[in-house]
Amino acid sequence: MDDTRPQLTPLQADELRNMDRFWRACNYLSAGMIYLRANPLLREQLKPEHIKRRLLGHWGSDPGQSFVLVHLNRVIKQRDLNVIFLSGPGHGAPATLAHSYLEGRYSEIYPDRGETEEGMGRLFKLFSFPGGIGSHCTPETPGSIHEGGELGYSLSHGYGAAFDNPDLIVTVMIGDGEAETGPLATSWHSNKFLNPARDGAVLPVLHLNGYKIANPTILARIPHEELEALLTGYGYKPWFVEGDEPEKMHQQMAATLDECIDEIRAIQQRARQEGNTQRPRWPMIVLRSPKGWTGPREFGGHKIEGTWRAHQVPVADPASNGKSLKLVEEWLRSYEPEKLFDEAGRLVAELRALAPVGPRRISANPHANGGALCKALDLPDFTEYAVDVGKPATSYVSPTDVLGQFLRDVMRRNMTSFRVFGPDETASNKLTAIYEASQKTWLAQIVESDSDGGDLSADGRVMEMLSEHTLEGWLEGYTLTGRHGLFATYEAFVHVIDSMFNQHAKWLEKAKRELRWRQPVPSLNLLITSLVWRQDHNGFTHQDPGFLDVVTNKSPDVVRIYLPPDANCLLSVADHCLRSRDYVNVIVADKQPHLQYLDMKSAITHCTKGIGIWDWASTDLDHEPDVVMASAGDIPTMEALAAVEILKGLFPDLKIRFVNVVDLFRLMPDSDHPHGLSGRDFDSLFTTDKPVIFNFHSYASLVHKLTYRRTNHANIHVHGYAEKGNINTPLELAIINGIDRFSLAIDVIDRVPRLRGVGDHAKERLRDQKIQHLDYAHTEGIDSEEIREWKWVG
Amino acid sequence: MDDTRPQLTPLQADELRNMDRFWRACNYLSAGMIYLRANPLLREQLKPEHIKRRLLGHWGSDPGQSFVLVHLNRVIKQRDLNVIFLSGPGHGAPATLAHSYLEGRYSEIYPDRGETEEGMGRLFKLFSFPGGIGSHCTPETPGSIHEGGELGYSLSHGYGAAFDNPDLIVTVMIGDGEAETGPLATSWHSNKFLNPARDGAVLPVLHLNGYKIANPTILARIPHEELEALLTGYGYKPWFVEGDEPEKMHQQMAATLDECIDEIRAIQQRARQEGNTQRPRWPMIVLRSPKGWTGPREFGGHKIEGTWRAHQVPVADPASNGKSLKLVEEWLRSYEPEKLFDEAGRLVAELRALAPVGPRRISANPHANGGALCKALDLPDFTEYAVDVGKPATSYVSPTDVLGQFLRDVMRRNMTSFRVFGPDETASNKLTAIYEASQKTWLAQIVESDSDGGDLSADGRVMEMLSEHTLEGWLEGYTLTGRHGLFATYEAFVHVIDSMFNQHAKWLEKAKRELRWRQPVPSLNLLITSLVWRQDHNGFTHQDPGFLDVVTNKSPDVVRIYLPPDANCLLSVADHCLRSRDYVNVIVADKQPHLQYLDMKSAITHCTKGIGIWDWASTDLDHEPDVVMASAGDIPTMEALAAVEILKGLFPDLKIRFVNVVDLFRLMPDSDHPHGLSGRDFDSLFTTDKPVIFNFHSYASLVHKLTYRRTNHANIHVHGYAEKGNINTPLELAIINGIDRFSLAIDVIDRVPRLRGVGDHAKERLRDQKIQHLDYAHTEGIDSEEIREWKWVG
Repeated sequence: MDDTRPQLTPLQADELRNMDRFWRACNYLSAGMIYLRANPLLREQLKPEHIKRRLLGHWGSDPGQSFVLVHLNRVIKQRDLNVIFLSGPGHGAPATLAHSYLEGRYSEIYPDRGETEEGMGRLFKLFSFPGGIGSHCTPETPGSIHEGGELGYSLSHGYGAAFDNPDLIVTVMIGDGEAETGPLATSWHSNKFLNPARDGAVLPVLHLNGYKIANPTILARIPHEELEALLTGYGYKPWFVEGDEPEKMHQQMAATLDECIDEIRAIQQRARQEGNTQRPRWPMIVLRSPKGWTGPREFGGHKIEGTWRAHQVPVADPASNGKSLKLVEEWLRSYEPEKLFDEAGRLVAELRALAPVGPRRISANPHANGGALCKALDLPDFTEYAVDVGKPATSYVSPTDVLGQFLRDVMRRNMTSFRVFGPDETASNKLTAIYEASQKTWLAQIVESDSDGGDLSADGRVMEMLSEHTLEGWLEGYTLTGRHGLFATYEAFVHVIDSMFNQHAKWLEKAKRELRWRQPVPSLNLLITSLVWRQDHNGFTHQDPGFLDVVTNKSPDVVRIYLPPDANCLLSVADHCLRSRDYVNVIVADKQPHLQYLDMKSAITHCTKGIGIWDWASTDLDHEPDVVMASAGDIPTMEALAAVEILKGLFPDLKIRFVNVVDLFRLMPDSDHPHGLSGRDFDSLFTTDKPVIFNFHSYASLVHKLTYRRTNHANIHVHGYAEKGNINTPLELAIINGIDRFSLAIDVIDRVPRLRGVGDHAKERLRDQKIQHLDYAHTEGIDSEEIREWKWVG
Repeated sequence: MDDTRPQLTPLQADELRNMDRFWRACNYLSAGMIYLRANPLLREQLKPEHIKRRLLGHWGSDPGQSFVLVHLNRVIKQRDLNVIFLSGPGHGAPATLAHSYLEGRYSEIYPDRGETEEGMGRLFKLFSFPGGIGSHCTPETPGSIHEGGELGYSLSHGYGAAFDNPDLIVTVMIGDGEAETGPLATSWHSNKFLNPARDGAVLPVLHLNGYKIANPTILARIPHEELEALLTGYGYKPWFVEGDEPEKMHQQMAATLDECIDEIRAIQQRARQEGNTQRPRWPMIVLRSPKGWTGPREFGGHKIEGTWRAHQVPVADPASNGKSLKLVEEWLRSYEPEKLFDEAGRLVAELRALAPVGPRRISANPHANGGALCKALDLPDFTEYAVDVGKPATSYVSPTDVLGQFLRDVMRRNMTSFRVFGPDETASNKLTAIYEASQKTWLAQIVESDSDGGDLSADGRVMEMLSEHTLEGWLEGYTLTGRHGLFATYEAFVHVIDSMFNQHAKWLEKAKRELRWRQPVPSLNLLITSLVWRQDHNGFTHQDPGFLDVVTNKSPDVVRIYLPPDANCLLSVADHCLRSRDYVNVIVADKQPHLQYLDMKSAITHCTKGIGIWDWASTDLDHEPDVVMASAGDIPTMEALAAVEILKGLFPDLKIRFVNVVDLFRLMPDSDHPHGLSGRDFDSLFTTDKPVIFNFHSYASLVHKLTYRRTNHANIHVHGYAEKGNINTPLELAIINGIDRFSLAIDVIDRVPRLRGVGDHAKERLRDQKIQHLDYAHTEGIDSEEIREWKWVG
């Protein structure tokens, strides 16, 4: 027994009895959802035809989750708390569904599943039923901002929800299976980034129910002292609630929860009244209860309660096996539904009275429908940050440096609803101007030498931790509760969060397309930077532009990809993304100095169209072009322009049309993506029969994936990253992957019929130039001056 | 001061002095690599022209790493230990390169960088130089099996290397930046899966050098007690070596390392001699040393040593700034190179004598060139596990169930060189037969109720932890040290390891294409199962077949994708993959019972070809087909066959050719992938002008990405997963994504010119059938019997 455990028995007999009844009502509903297609209140004897034809669902973690929810209700009511609940364990939806149904919220949203016998019957039937209710806390679940279909993100989501919500208490139930994942294991450290004065509280409840699908869990099978050390090491003060006797457990849990809330309030008071923002030791709870608690103890000689057998459906065949049917009936009747629900099928009044009312209900808390609380950002005029371009392609600027200045002022104007996230790379990614608006959040120790350049503070709003998982989780939690943000990360390592992106896009799609009651939330903005073409010293491991392939697999309703070619375009795109709702916006923009092309007005026009001809770079004015040179991305655009420059010198009468793509989905047909171009518009840009040389930021095949249905597709020749690299100068890397000016010019000569033969000598010279430049790089360690100083002179 | 710290001073004065000199030689070389393009031994005064034109590289963690390497050499020699070293911190290559150069190993492999002044100069110049030596421990680095370009995997790689290598001690240096990542944070728990009797030891060295690129690290900024609690909670016994005075630190480190090796040996003795396989508390070391230790203390009024400024190049501009040049020269001369290297430029003899010899050198240990130790698996005859098929498409079998039986016997025959990995899903994925050969590895607590079904044992060889990251890391470490394995995981969640896959593929490509001294290692086999089409109760979050898009972006030299349509094909593919070297093999095969098509002989023929016409399902024999029906994947193949069946009933004279694809890269042109089909072969299968209806397992666009250059591409119409799903029956999910038999038949009617008009009535009936089946599913919760009992009768 842990000596810090409170020894009180705070619950009066009546209160305890009713809380236990409420809990049993939850458990009854959870079990009912898994088994029953009819006879929901067991008003007649259970018969095979009442049982669903296919039994799907997960019982194991439900009673533990309901137990916590019932106890949260008590403290919410008693203290008028503002609490949301995140359900971490996989497939724990029956518990949250049951609870939201008993709070009345579920029926408010889904009136066909009302608080009647019929409504309950419909809830039961639809659960885990084709086209019906999911077995995770899907977007359809009232009160949920965390589906938990993929494990590992509950705690980072919880912290994201708590940032800048000083009044909120985010209870995060963490499954002990989930706790084994990497993302969860490091997200405990989020407490070094939570400011008790300004942010809300997170109350983690680690649920040790002992088993995953088929195995025990690690944290349930290490000695008590080891677990306590681990959680203490993570910076928490763990309280243990352990056992299986409901009465004792209720008293323990109530006392523990009182203690935790008291501690949270004391921490917040010290920070808010006394100005003490030293990192506190936040409380957390370890709830050790049997898997499938209150379910069948054993069946067929096997233990069920407290073992992995209780994970999903504890008794498999009640429709075909009389003994099983009898056991399921006994189990369901053990909750005494006739005493929990009235004649009409509604929870009896004295139990209804246990739930909070209105928006204090966990299932109705507006923070879990963040769009409802969301305010638009107060945005400065982005055109004021414009780079003076003058003649196109004559000056070099770091696009993200310029963006940083805009973001700095976005932050200044929105100091409680906007944050920037990055894995220790905000400075490396040249977004340093942001630090003028806010320091980096840091509640761990600060030492003297940090101050000159470190800019760490408990009050900071720039979030930096070397865990892409945690940052993405924070940002998801932050936007799902209605606030705004941007996550900047190295391009190659955005793959670390591929799966989180997938899950978030799926959430947005469901919420947006199917749930009118969910208000639109701010888009999740991903700035992909430190791009493949400028890994001068990081080498091959840092070269992977393939995240875009992952993104293009998701629903066109919710994903957007932008490749602004220069700083002004980046500003225009960023402004657009920060105003948008319900998307994942992927912005690809580098941090190194790059050539600038468009003045602000042209940039706005270009980005609004998303794709367009650059007349100033084209030589086909008033003519059919001989060839279309197209580009998407910064370095590819520079190389394509340089190729045009070379070709102009070689073949002054060659008609070249230059097309640049900012909005990648413009390439798709309009039938497949809302941003897609019509066939006519596409053809008017790319012609129906001329060669198109397309210089692309990412893998070439992606352009084909998007354009394969276009009339002129057979003539589209894409140059892109070909998975070749090492420590390389920018030009060298371009050359070995064939996106360099020389290779492009050669390709044009090869593809334009009237240059065949005529261009042979030129091709040879271009090939020689490639070799010369490689030789120079390998001798001097840098690109030759000629290339580095290249300016557009057209 | 920690009271468990050994108080001894084990080093004699001479030994200490020489170890320190060896260490200074390492540090000299590390710094030289970053700065010098000439004058490597500083035999003349340092001038601007000796400095590289671009300074790239990372100094910060090098001295700490070299410090550990020098001390490892001492214990290796003293006790004749078998030790490898994994460098976790990003960009720490100068330390390992320096050490391998001083051990002579580097020059053995790269004779142009010999142990002479000239060779040293060349090493310096090539480091972080275009086309030269990478700044991580790339495959080119002798002794490396862990590049560390992406952070987070050092410890799981280390455990993977230690499994089944009882004699080996794997020292893993973990950066405190890296330690913030999720994958690293949970991989500490790998100690619950290491059997001291059978496996080697892992000695983690957590290097607290305090800073990442631009921020302090979390673990360096929590109180000592908190850190100690955390590491104790992870199950280790931490030893602390902290300070900055070299002499004291050498004594401390030597004493600590002695202690750790003694403890490791004692643990192994208890397990091996006394049979005590209780989970021990393995020792580990926390090394707290200044970032950029021994480098410049400060410059321009800023502290450097011990701050983030020492992370990369501590003094930026020696070529252009005389003060900087002077400081760099003083710093380099502080190591006294003239006393470390002889006239020829070779390390002086008394220091060379400190290194182990031959394969005991860390840089030459054969375990870090695992192909050299690798033995082929002793494989049973896979045809003996064949499923009796009889008439095609009349019986149902779970493919992974059959595979499990084969794998069971693979395991039985290779009990020290083959393991199967899976995140708590080996049973769920129907590979349960494996447990007949071996239990699950588990060194945490085992309780009575585990035994009936749990099958946990310290001696188990089935690796299950709910962390895809850790499992993938273990398997990578296991195969890179020459052993064999297979990782089975849910299809949707294989995206969790997208980035690890990318990095491993890049490693294999470099090793295979450019490094003859690296022997081929066993392929990394990924079994992707619990597929998108059978997420009957998991819903939308569990539906993502897009990993294949990620895989197709990697070099054709190292990736393979197989979609065996049935159990016999799966056996044939698995046998092939287990024999292969240097690939990542991705096998897509479901766990649910599926129709079987090919007897073993036909399966072998089909899989060997990788793609082929199924005559028994075609109706075009001796004719030009009207339409080609193609499929890849199990459910898509079943639905395509059912569509053919429907069409045969409707249009008895329709000529349909049925093509099935197992080896996905067959679709690519042979110029782009070694498995690609020639244009002629492709056209002979798919015709040059007939409609092709392709029913695909994954997103439809992937087939277009692979086939866009084919003659008949404009006529290829792909059906695939369209990102639509919920809780669905298999047929319902097929219908809403359009890969069902009815949609396919309708598409054929639309595409075959002579069916236009004629087929209108049939189309209407097919549409009605879709609706009827959806209605049935939504009423009954299951697919209608008619569909579930569908058999191929052709």
